[in-house]
Amino acid sequence: MTEKSPTKNIQAQVEVQLDERSYPIYIGHDILTQAHQILESVIRGKKILLVTNNEVYDLHGHTLQLSMEKTAQEVQVVTIPDGEQHKNLEILSALYDAAVEGNLERSSVVVALGGGIVGDMAGLLAATYMRGIGFVQVPTTLLAQVDSSVGGKVAVNHLRGKNLIGAFYQPQAVLIDTKTLETLPEREINAGFAEVIKTAMLGDSNLFSYLEDNIDNILKLKPIELSHVIAACCRVKAAVVSADEEEHGIRAILNLGHTYGHAIETLTNYQTYRHGEAVAIGMIAACRLAEKVNNLTPEIRERLTKLLEKANLPTQFPLFPREKWQMVFALDKKVKAGNVIFILPERIGSAQIVNTIPLESALEVVEELQKDS
Amino acid sequence: MTEKSPTKNIQAQVEVQLDERSYPIYIGHDILTQAHQILESVIRGKKILLVTNNEVYDLHGHTLQLSMEKTAQEVQVVTIPDGEQHKNLEILSALYDAAVEGNLERSSVVVALGGGIVGDMAGLLAATYMRGIGFVQVPTTLLAQVDSSVGGKVAVNHLRGKNLIGAFYQPQAVLIDTKTLETLPEREINAGFAEVIKTAMLGDSNLFSYLEDNIDNILKLKPIELSHVIAACCRVKAAVVSADEEEHGIRAILNLGHTYGHAIETLTNYQTYRHGEAVAIGMIAACRLAEKVNNLTPEIRERLTKLLEKANLPTQFPLFPREKWQMVFALDKKVKAGNVIFILPERIGSAQIVNTIPLESALEVVEELQKDS
Ligand SMILES: NC(=O)c1ccc[n+]([C@@H]2O[C@H](COP(=O)([O-])OP(=O)(O)OC[C@H]3O[C@@H](n4cnc5c(N)ncnc54)[C@H](O)[C@@H]3O)[C@@H](O)[C@H]2O)c1
Ligand SMILES: NC(=O)c1ccc[n+]([C@@H]2O[C@H](COP(=O)([O-])OP(=O)(O)OC[C@H]3O[C@@H](n4cnc5c(N)ncnc54)[C@H](O)[C@@H]3O)[C@@H](O)[C@H]2O)c1
Repeated sequence: MTEKSPTKNIQAQVEVQLDERSYPIYIGHDILTQAHQILESVIRGKKILLVTNNEVYDLHGHTLQLSMEKTAQEVQVVTIPDGEQHKNLEILSALYDAAVEGNLERSSVVVALGGGIVGDMAGLLAATYMRGIGFVQVPTTLLAQVDSSVGGKVAVNHLRGKNLIGAFYQPQAVLIDTKTLETLPEREINAGFAEVIKTAMLGDSNLFSYLEDNIDNILKLKPIELSHVIAACCRVKAAVVSADEEEHGIRAILNLGHTYGHAIETLTNYQTYRHGEAVAIGMIAACRLAEKVNNLTPEIRERLTKLLEKANLPTQFPLFPREKWQMVFALDKKVKAGNVIFILPERIGSAQIVNTIPLESALEVVEELQKDS
Repeated sequence: MTEKSPTKNIQAQVEVQLDERSYPIYIGHDILTQAHQILESVIRGKKILLVTNNEVYDLHGHTLQLSMEKTAQEVQVVTIPDGEQHKNLEILSALYDAAVEGNLERSSVVVALGGGIVGDMAGLLAATYMRGIGFVQVPTTLLAQVDSSVGGKVAVNHLRGKNLIGAFYQPQAVLIDTKTLETLPEREINAGFAEVIKTAMLGDSNLFSYLEDNIDNILKLKPIELSHVIAACCRVKAAVVSADEEEHGIRAILNLGHTYGHAIETLTNYQTYRHGEAVAIGMIAACRLAEKVNNLTPEIRERLTKLLEKANLPTQFPLFPREKWQMVFALDKKVKAGNVIFILPERIGSAQIVNTIPLESALEVVEELQKDS
């Protein structure tokens, strides 16, 4: 009956620095079983509401619940339906009901176990129940582990706009178990990998090289390599969030590839591409645009394209008439007075926010890339 | 066509100190007409969503709208139904729809014109639309002017709990026009006055004496006296909020009279008393309790009772059997392990938070006061 040391399987720990709202990200393999030790200071003696969905609960929920029950006062479980169409006020309202039914108190803790959808909704619940209660993220998709669980953006969708209703609300801790990814469908892994590559592109050239060298092992989910990559991504995101928590400026840099990506998702009615896949193509377009307006060397786009292909991500631009692209760009909130806001790569590991790109240049890039496709 | 100076009718200005979230409270008579000047830095060139209800809009909304239109990009109006039963997620959802319809942007500003209900709901809208947009409070009830518009508590009710869904979200400015109170029903004035007396009791002995000396003029809404009183209340509230924005400790002091008040409201099904009226009786009970456990001099309760009577507020304890009181105290979240958390007066102008009051003592006070009734 010797308990493992709490740090036994933790391979990396990253701190998000936000004064009194700072928090740790724990990264390791097979660490759900140690949640009671790792999260002890946050959950001991507390009522826990574990928010997840049925599929994830069946795969990983029991493990986490059993572990937390060793130190929490009690662990109640509530599941939400799977799918972006359910990330809305109606389901949030059902989560409030569950919190009330469970007699959650100001000292209670919401624990989100799942992908970005669970994390975003559970986070908004925690942010607004009794004006804010405890919150822990346990992300189980690659996208959530390298991106959405860190930084405190929580939200639900409105029919007329994604993430329109939300808040900035930081978790007290993030627990990333890379083993949970073993049950994730390959396409979800790949889509998450697009955000990994994005993070390397905009903030960490060493990570980019590491990805080029180790892509096979990473996609095979080898624990050491995977933890290394996730920790590197969390470090970049943590630094950006520390510098600009509420996105008044530099935090927008995390949207590299998103202006084109968004347009692609809109034109294909969110049916054809996973978000990460659209971002993959969007990053290539952002490179091409930077070549045009800032003389970025084409070599960067070549390296990027090669890495995306190795990660089984799409790199070809979908074909739509010019007017359609024009229309979706015009609808984008990032367009102001004929100019579009773009995040442009400067070199591998660095990007900048540019808000003086003429819509015309953005459209030329679309046409050029469509010809290549 | 000489414009009045923006500060012409402003009789007092109070600052709420919260670092980068600090904001001014402007207090004056007939200043809605000057909103475009007073609020210029917050609303110039912005899209405004004016949230109010039909009655208040008819009485004061046009004036505010016309004034803001002189400097804002545009002013759209949305009204919510009157009454506490509509302060819920469903109406909040309709407010989100209005914000979307009106194409509000991250730079837009929600302006709340009305009592505490409008302010609480508009504030939660502003707090969560696009993760937080601009927010201005223009309170038009006495309660809202001396209490709810200041301090950033925003919320809607859940069927099972008042203000259960909410946030801490500070406005960028509060504009208090004492002239708007001239259309407020007398009972609402009196109910608001209970919060004024509460504020004096817990934080400002000079204000208490001023109230004793000037009660008639204040209740007649004489502008100078009224502004003086409202400014004093805002100063006390601002100081408490600056010290403990998210109510981890001292902010609870603002709940003087609320433990008993709450019990009274619950037992009478929220039908018999306005909130302020229940708080009035609750403050008397808090004094009696302090006499019992802390030897507070009975003179304080006498002065308080006299002032409440002059303000046409109830001072008699309603009659219910002991078991009923016991039951509602037991349901109160402020009860922990047989002890109840109470705010106890120490002298006029000072109170303290005490969490070691035996439930038994609290019940004895009820019985004693019921005998007096
Ligand atoms: N908050 C942020 O900063 C941020 C950033 C990016 C994206 N997002 C949001 O994240 C959401 C997308 O997140 P996502 O890509 O994780 O999608 P998701 O949450 O829908 O998860 C993808 C699918 O994988 C399943 N799943 C999750 N973990 C699993 C596991 N370990 N094994 C098997 N199946 C598993 C889910 O049930 C779901 O069907 C979007 O709503 C987006 O708006 C938020
Ligand atoms: N956020 C906080 O810190 C805080 C503090 C205390 C109370 N509250 C909340 O405030 C609410 C109560 O506020 P309230 O007492 O202002 O009630 P209210 O908002 O219901 O207003 C009372 C009535 O007066 C009407 N009215 C408002 N201004 C008027 C005017 N100038 N002339 C004529 N009629 C007018 C309203 O339409 C309403 O019918 C509760 O929901 C309570 O939870 C919040």
